[in-house]
Amino acid sequence: MAGSSIGTLFKLTTFGESHGIAIGGIIDGVPSDFELDLEAVQYELDRRKPGQSAIVTQRKESDTVQFLSGIFEGKTTGAPIGFSIQNEDQKSNDYDHIKDAFRPSHADFTYEKKYGLRDYRGGGRSSARETASRVVAGAIAKQILNKQNIQINAYVDQVGSIQMTDDQIDSVDFSLIESNPVRCPNLEKAEEMEQLIRDIRKDGDTIGGCVRCEIKGVPIGLGEPVFDRLNAELAKAMLSINAAKGFEYGSGFKGVTLRGSEHNDVFLENGKTSTNLSGGIQGGISNGMPIYFRVAFKPVATIVKEQDSIDKEGNKVIVTGKGRHDPCVVPRAVPIVESMAAIVILDMLLRNNARV
Amino acid sequence: MAGSSIGTLFKLTTFGESHGIAIGGIIDGVPSDFELDLEAVQYELDRRKPGQSAIVTQRKESDTVQFLSGIFEGKTTGAPIGFSIQNEDQKSNDYDHIKDAFRPSHADFTYEKKYGLRDYRGGGRSSARETASRVVAGAIAKQILNKQNIQINAYVDQVGSIQMTDDQIDSVDFSLIESNPVRCPNLEKAEEMEQLIRDIRKDGDTIGGCVRCEIKGVPIGLGEPVFDRLNAELAKAMLSINAAKGFEYGSGFKGVTLRGSEHNDVFLENGKTSTNLSGGIQGGISNGMPIYFRVAFKPVATIVKEQDSIDKEGNKVIVTGKGRHDPCVVPRAVPIVESMAAIVILDMLLRNNARV
Amino acid sequence: MAGSSIGTLFKLTTFGESHGIAIGGIIDGVPSDFELDLEAVQYELDRRKPGQSAIVTQRKESDTVQFLSGIFEGKTTGAPIGFSIQNEDQKSNDYDHIKDAFRPSHADFTYEKKYGLRDYRGGGRSSARETASRVVAGAIAKQILNKQNIQINAYVDQVGSIQMTDDQIDSVDFSLIESNPVRCPNLEKAEEMEQLIRDIRKDGDTIGGCVRCEIKGVPIGLGEPVFDRLNAELAKAMLSINAAKGFEYGSGFKGVTLRGSEHNDVFLENGKTSTNLSGGIQGGISNGMPIYFRVAFKPVATIVKEQDSIDKEGNKVIVTGKGRHDPCVVPRAVPIVESMAAIVILDMLLRNNARV
Amino acid sequence: MAGSSIGTLFKLTTFGESHGIAIGGIIDGVPSDFELDLEAVQYELDRRKPGQSAIVTQRKESDTVQFLSGIFEGKTTGAPIGFSIQNEDQKSNDYDHIKDAFRPSHADFTYEKKYGLRDYRGGGRSSARETASRVVAGAIAKQILNKQNIQINAYVDQVGSIQMTDDQIDSVDFSLIESNPVRCPNLEKAEEMEQLIRDIRKDGDTIGGCVRCEIKGVPIGLGEPVFDRLNAELAKAMLSINAAKGFEYGSGFKGVTLRGSEHNDVFLENGKTSTNLSGGIQGGISNGMPIYFRVAFKPVATIVKEQDSIDKEGNKVIVTGKGRHDPCVVPRAVPIVESMAAIVILDMLLRNNARV
Repeated sequence: MAGSSIGTLFKLTTFGESHGIAIGGIIDGVPSDFELDLEAVQYELDRRKPGQSAIVTQRKESDTVQFLSGIFEGKTTGAPIGFSIQNEDQKSNDYDHIKDAFRPSHADFTYEKKYGLRDYRGGGRSSARETASRVVAGAIAKQILNKQNIQINAYVDQVGSIQMTDDQIDSVDFSLIESNPVRCPNLEKAEEMEQLIRDIRKDGDTIGGCVRCEIKGVPIGLGEPVFDRLNAELAKAMLSINAAKGFEYGSGFKGVTLRGSEHNDVFLENGKTSTNLSGGIQGGISNGMPIYFRVAFKPVATIVKEQDSIDKEGNKVIVTGKGRHDPCVVPRAVPIVESMAAIVILDMLLRNNARV
Repeated sequence: MAGSSIGTLFKLTTFGESHGIAIGGIIDGVPSDFELDLEAVQYELDRRKPGQSAIVTQRKESDTVQFLSGIFEGKTTGAPIGFSIQNEDQKSNDYDHIKDAFRPSHADFTYEKKYGLRDYRGGGRSSARETASRVVAGAIAKQILNKQNIQINAYVDQVGSIQMTDDQIDSVDFSLIESNPVRCPNLEKAEEMEQLIRDIRKDGDTIGGCVRCEIKGVPIGLGEPVFDRLNAELAKAMLSINAAKGFEYGSGFKGVTLRGSEHNDVFLENGKTSTNLSGGIQGGISNGMPIYFRVAFKPVATIVKEQDSIDKEGNKVIVTGKGRHDPCVVPRAVPIVESMAAIVILDMLLRNNARV
Repeated sequence: MAGSSIGTLFKLTTFGESHGIAIGGIIDGVPSDFELDLEAVQYELDRRKPGQSAIVTQRKESDTVQFLSGIFEGKTTGAPIGFSIQNEDQKSNDYDHIKDAFRPSHADFTYEKKYGLRDYRGGGRSSARETASRVVAGAIAKQILNKQNIQINAYVDQVGSIQMTDDQIDSVDFSLIESNPVRCPNLEKAEEMEQLIRDIRKDGDTIGGCVRCEIKGVPIGLGEPVFDRLNAELAKAMLSINAAKGFEYGSGFKGVTLRGSEHNDVFLENGKTSTNLSGGIQGGISNGMPIYFRVAFKPVATIVKEQDSIDKEGNKVIVTGKGRHDPCVVPRAVPIVESMAAIVILDMLLRNNARV
Repeated sequence: MAGSSIGTLFKLTTFGESHGIAIGGIIDGVPSDFELDLEAVQYELDRRKPGQSAIVTQRKESDTVQFLSGIFEGKTTGAPIGFSIQNEDQKSNDYDHIKDAFRPSHADFTYEKKYGLRDYRGGGRSSARETASRVVAGAIAKQILNKQNIQINAYVDQVGSIQMTDDQIDSVDFSLIESNPVRCPNLEKAEEMEQLIRDIRKDGDTIGGCVRCEIKGVPIGLGEPVFDRLNAELAKAMLSINAAKGFEYGSGFKGVTLRGSEHNDVFLENGKTSTNLSGGIQGGISNGMPIYFRVAFKPVATIVKEQDSIDKEGNKVIVTGKGRHDPCVVPRAVPIVESMAAIVILDMLLRNNARV
């Protein structure tokens, strides 16, 4: 019950299914008297939308956000910002073939069992289309954070087994992220990844990947021990994204192989640390160093190949992906990861600023 | 502000510092009329406590929980269960040397900056001692879940670079977990791990590791889309544990290298799936298959070696770990991971059961 | 920050200002597989809307709700129900005269000071227009409750000093509530009240009143001690309605003059009580008897008469109500009180049903 | 489920039954680096405790609070403050006679039905003894608010039908509140009230009353539209107190009889208002004028007289109050009302201060 909200003070609640009338949300707790750049919000939405390049789904959605409240004469009023995005490309007969069948590794089965029925058109509520609403809220959060000199950048650092090296990550140039359809700032790796995705698409198959996110300029003090640690809030936000299978921050899973003497970040006299294996968070609280984390995304479950499955009565059926789907979701996940990070950081900034 | 609670309907709130008078908590939303086995709670606490074996800290704490409310004639009453655990081993002068210094990769620096002061004795609130309160709540949750035929088992599957293989994991025997101090059910790997930890301890150093957790018997339907997905709630709970650096469920980070056709779990006629790369969760909702996930823990920051650091004024100082600390935290993290899993599962079970 | 949501499991979040593009909301936690009567929702909205009779504001608003999600083939899916109501009658120049002035006893002053700016058109977010969104959610909650045999009826029992007697309340006939524009089920009192409101309107003035609400069929057990008592949740919900100044349940303020021996409700052998001064709630938990409470509403602040006030700079100004306002708000408050009651009761029903 | 917490940023969670081992709580979100006067906390507890005078219950409880965490070297650390109060006067055999019987207008019946069992000793969790924990949190909140020049004073303005007049309230002298056992600052009325309570006690009966609370120095801006209005939060907090039956703020229930032209508060050039029928809150937000409200308390249900009732099986029984109970609860309710007000005001102050 009631899992469609995130945040305590800066709070996003979303609604909407893939093939309903509209999706949208309410952003509550928006700081007031802030001049919003609405085109910048649309720009972020466009980064997420389908059909941008040859390696993502060719579904056509203009994804134009309409703001319904909370903005007056270009400024936020402190009242909740309601917004909606119309669903345009509603070919629901595309989905008649899965009306009674459960696609493998989709949410068809679990939604049907949990709710007793499901809106089968395009995955309904379980569709990643819902994340467009997150991007709207995230784009607004990002603008507010930018004014506080907090910068959030995400990019693809792995597709299948092709992965950026540590050196490539250390010398990353954020300005190259948008230069290629994979959103990988290392152009050599980007080309390899793009080729892999093209090959996978030809096979009617899909492939997974990872998004790396870096947040600079976060002041010391964000994160509320012991349960609402900054890393715990980020983990939840990231795992709430469709197809996410893992989260690690700082040294992450690799860090377990290190010794304490190798892993500890030594303080400099200015309060910075000489290394940053902590990933900018110590004891669940930001320490002023850059925050970075990675999110793993599984290969999209919808493939063009025929697959064995069952229908509602438990009979064997064959399902085939007919819709227009992404061979690799990670390039489009980049703005979503940034958005969820922005929502968390702004919420935790407000919580930390709540003082007498 | 106010990050000491977790859960919506089954809710744990904790208090207490390492060297204060007591730690403890309040468990609210406990199902009523349930016969509690208080010795089983103490047993779980004993699994977590220091001094159990040669490879964990030799700090002496009896860690006896006292229940203060919510239980009447052996049964839960539905009222909140308050409990406390006295702190016994309070040698606070052990910590005078770090009173004004910030230990590398500890929470000393961030607590001091966030709150303007800190209880430096034993890490204060940032000490992993707080997790004893989680084990109390988790032990109660586990009993309630067991009666619903839900079983939670965690174990160490990696210490440093020594890791159980997929085959070893597939044939795991939970009854062996407690047979060795590392809590690794593969006895060969357990011995290697134990030897590594002994070596590390001799060096005055520490090492990281991973805990794997498996939950059987979870009914279909737990998890509340879109933000309170079961995997998202588990991720937050796990990342809220001291020293946790990463979380993955199902195929996790390895899954990104697979193709959709390899990754999809095919349904059998009984609604089960032939493989379980989904890790028992699809679309954020449990699908009735076993749930499994891994948590990465960094090497403990407290090492016996001398380390460069700074004091409150930013002057260079040398800090040395004097306390009695764990060379490897993961064996003691096992009951904590189980406890946090139990807290999440029971809360989400109640949320799913909230129906007209 | 973030005060636009109410409810834990059945949760309403609203957005929208009086003269923005639209108002609306998201209803999360709606029980699934429930057949909704959308016309019945519109009927409740029509009960609240302006221009219904000669004694309410003549503002014209069609107040047509559009559902955007969460309903599939006529049934709730368990996904959040997003909805919007377009604002039609946007004569914002009506409000130029108060752009820089603070109307007495309105929210103009407090919004301007809290947020640093305000949407002055029609009161912006502070307008009672927002309550239309509550009526949508309340109408849905009412349908779900009705199917559980829970019936909610509110009516006007006082306008100015004209008040229904205890005898009149004891013999109330709910079917007469909608028979007159005041929504008072005692037709004699209704006529007196209507006459008073007409006189007040002629004077360009306003008058307060009370709404009484009775809830039948509530099962035993709703309400969560100690802070989320059923009466406490109802009190909050009612005081969150514009112009509400007081709440009492059961014997209420009159009950303080009684002795315990007069006030106690004696149990009958069937578990019912012979009297019901408790108002259906004991120890914060429903006891199966009818729940009843009253809500006091102040006279609307907007009057046609000239009033002294100040502008943003603190200069003296004269303000005059130009808009089309209600001489007495209580008849239109009736469906709002019912809606807020339904939202609370359904939420608390779900919370009580959350069991293993 | 889970109703034992109140507050969003400054959050109190309580535990404990009347005759269990201890009661207590956890105060989370306490501003850090604040020097606490622990004796002042005990003083407030002593104001609430039984046995203070001839007109309250003669139960003996020393009610000594022990702080377990969150305070270091006399200052708050920002960590949660855990505390407990031992239950001393545990004569549970006093309650054997009601073990199987439901006392009229108590929570015996509803607790038994909701939870399937109940701790019948002294009312268990439904006992007003739980409010001692609120007084601890309230006393801390009050100290923090006092430093912000916010002063909270409550007093008894009505017992039975004896009520302070408007003139007496206008000229109230807070320094007289503690001068008499009734806690009524008008000494003439106080004497009348005291005599009434003595008479009632002789009859083995009880009587209701009202507490009025006034809060000065609240800055403009507290309260979060639309549901978390300051008045709504206060209403909930007050109705969560045992025996509370009603809440009104500003002009309250009397205000409904006024015309808008009489009720509106005219602004002065300094932003203050010439009258204060709004009670310091407009549009749900504090306007800088004194906040005042009243809370109605019913006569205590426990009377010495014999009463008809039923037992668990629905058989007729006679119950008689044997314990040592209050003939009138309102004098002891005064510090509880102040405490709940302080908890709400501090929480809403923090929420209002949460800004970028």
